[in-house]
Amino acid sequence: MNKRVYNFSAGPSMLPVAVLERAAAEMTNANGTGQSVMEMSHRSKDFKPIIDHAEAMLRELMEIPGNYKVLFLQGGASLQFPMIPLNLAVREDGKKQKVTYVDTGVWASKAAEEASKYAEVRVAASSKDKAYSYIPEAPAPDTEDVYYHITWNNTIVGTKWNKIPNTGSVPLVADISSCILSEPLDVSKFALLYAGAQKNLGPAGVTVVIIREDLIKKVPDWIPTMLRYEIHAKEGSMYNTPPCYGIYIIGLVLDWMKEQGGLAEIERRNREKATLLYDYLDQSKLFRSPIRKEDRSLMNIPFVIGNADLEAQFVKEAAASGLVNLAGHRLVGGMRASIYNAMPKEGVLALIDFMKQFEAAHRS
Amino acid sequence: MNKRVYNFSAGPSMLPVAVLERAAAEMTNANGTGQSVMEMSHRSKDFKPIIDHAEAMLRELMEIPGNYKVLFLQGGASLQFPMIPLNLAVREDGKKQKVTYVDTGVWASKAAEEASKYAEVRVAASSKDKAYSYIPEAPAPDTEDVYYHITWNNTIVGTKWNKIPNTGSVPLVADISSCILSEPLDVSKFALLYAGAQKNLGPAGVTVVIIREDLIKKVPDWIPTMLRYEIHAKEGSMYNTPPCYGIYIIGLVLDWMKEQGGLAEIERRNREKATLLYDYLDQSKLFRSPIRKEDRSLMNIPFVIGNADLEAQFVKEAAASGLVNLAGHRLVGGMRASIYNAMPKEGVLALIDFMKQFEAAHRS
Ligand SMILES: Cc1ncc(COP(=O)(O)O)c(C=O)c1O
Ligand SMILES: Cc1ncc(COP(=O)(O)O)c(C=O)c1O
Ligand SMILES: [Mg+2]
Ligand SMILES: [Mg+2]
Ligand SMILES: [Mg+2]
Ligand SMILES: [Mg+2]
Repeated sequence: MNKRVYNFSAGPSMLPVAVLERAAAEMTNANGTGQSVMEMSHRSKDFKPIIDHAEAMLRELMEIPGNYKVLFLQGGASLQFPMIPLNLAVREDGKKQKVTYVDTGVWASKAAEEASKYAEVRVAASSKDKAYSYIPEAPAPDTEDVYYHITWNNTIVGTKWNKIPNTGSVPLVADISSCILSEPLDVSKFALLYAGAQKNLGPAGVTVVIIREDLIKKVPDWIPTMLRYEIHAKEGSMYNTPPCYGIYIIGLVLDWMKEQGGLAEIERRNREKATLLYDYLDQSKLFRSPIRKEDRSLMNIPFVIGNADLEAQFVKEAAASGLVNLAGHRLVGGMRASIYNAMPKEGVLALIDFMKQFEAAHRS
Repeated sequence: MNKRVYNFSAGPSMLPVAVLERAAAEMTNANGTGQSVMEMSHRSKDFKPIIDHAEAMLRELMEIPGNYKVLFLQGGASLQFPMIPLNLAVREDGKKQKVTYVDTGVWASKAAEEASKYAEVRVAASSKDKAYSYIPEAPAPDTEDVYYHITWNNTIVGTKWNKIPNTGSVPLVADISSCILSEPLDVSKFALLYAGAQKNLGPAGVTVVIIREDLIKKVPDWIPTMLRYEIHAKEGSMYNTPPCYGIYIIGLVLDWMKEQGGLAEIERRNREKATLLYDYLDQSKLFRSPIRKEDRSLMNIPFVIGNADLEAQFVKEAAASGLVNLAGHRLVGGMRASIYNAMPKEGVLALIDFMKQFEAAHRS
């Protein structure tokens, strides 16, 4: 294939082509250093401005208050599942502390399961009864909770929270892996936000953690040094060698976002793209969205026909037309179009066109 | 600067320019997939051959026996420091198991310190008495040891083991971060080998673990899922999203190694490069190597003048001549030339030329 495809993968997924072209152009000699960013010593004067720039751009676009640290870590969102309770909930005396999780899907429940190794986890609400097709009301925290965890955007099922739960003085923690920088989010309402980079930010292999400073504290000795926010915060994400190239790409992606008009314009585009697809689904006689309207994700849009053979045929024929990775997650089946920031409107229009043709051919 | 520099960084460091050029050429469309490797879903048919290829090439070049698993993980060698004892030494009943470490430098002692959280660590020998300038005799393992840990190449001080300690039935574990694929190594003599990618393999953000299958076992529940070899082995390094782009670059670097003539030819070049520099140092009246001859690293070559001002001037003037990152590690000072696989002989010759000029100007 000579031309680029529209990639609807849930992540890793599309990156802005302008970013890829700039990375290619700088590959053997970045900023006149005579080196690739991949070759730069993380402790060198060449790399320092690159990580500083990525952090500054993230702070600017997300409007991160000054009393939050930004960490660039490894291990994916999956390593945050244990790091959060290990850092926020483990006491020297071993007494298990209370935490609340809301179960809105596979990732939310994996996070809770991992936390239950280190904390007394209460799953206060779940939408599992209806295949996670909605976001439940957020119950009040327990007064003894040391934190309260939600998954802001649920990648697999395609839901998202539409208001920030009020947890009072209990620190609110949110997984924003699949929606970071898709629309404005009031960081000051959260104690900790985390995201794997591989959807809206850059390549897999970098995890961003945004943590309010008062939550960063010394933890018991038995916790691995590499799993301590305290260490990474103190060392500016350089306790050991960070994933330098991924951090560089994140900086380029954030530059691109700003050039596009910043988060307000990105949000406008995301709403426009999602609305186009949801509107089509809602009037279609062949396809439908299984998700409650008010809880629908802007980023991950699952849809079904209700006939597994026809769905498989759809996914296959779409791929042949340059619309790739439209199969739903293996746990839920059907189809899913992930339309992250880098998916152009043209990609969504091409998908809708293809769906219309498919509908015309298969509506009996 | 329009031309590329010779980068003597201890890591991240130089990569073969042919690899960088290929990565740049494939940046927006790899193998006709219409995507960058950075954009590929890790579960797609496009990415599968890429990770399989990286593993197959590593197996071929290192001659890894069939009863070893190859894992591509995140977190750097530093995350292996706890993972090794957590996977090999922790028992369900909490009884601390015995392990032996040999202290040959900063990384070796960091590894031992982290292990002491989970195991009864015996540091059986150390070369700290002489600033780590030699490799001590390897003491016999304790009969109760569950493993025996060494740091094969010591990046900061520039030593390496020149024979594999005989640990009998006690599993031998080695950190080969800074020497992997620099010369042949008999993998079958080790139970576990690990390396951060950022010296000889590729970009920072990938850690390679080569582990004998019989050592992979279920570990107690309290150990984070992400820190279990069992999980990563069972899931083929895809328990969560792996650092896909780094794995791709590793595959390209290994292709390049094979094209150059494989490990035998790489070793020949490494010996030639190191010999040129050590021979110059040993006859120089200004510079000298602080390391015992039989224990000298092929990869990391520290040298000193013994005058901090002159050393700083050397590092600065060398950089101005396109020979960058020659300062020694902040803990030891002096100079260090890291000459990994991708450093061409021309780079070493340029360094020696520069040293000769500097010596002529400054030998009083
Ligand atoms: C919401 C959410 N959380 C966590 C994860 C796991 O992320 P990782 O693969 O980076 O560990 C994902 C992956 O898709 C996700 O979508
Ligand atoms: C021998 C050795 N071990 C461990 C490390 C730590 O590696 P990382 O930064 O990948 O955690 C290094 C880093 O230079 C090293 O040289
Ligand atoms: Mg989900
Ligand atoms: Mg419909
Ligand atoms: Mg060392
Ligand atoms: Mg000398």
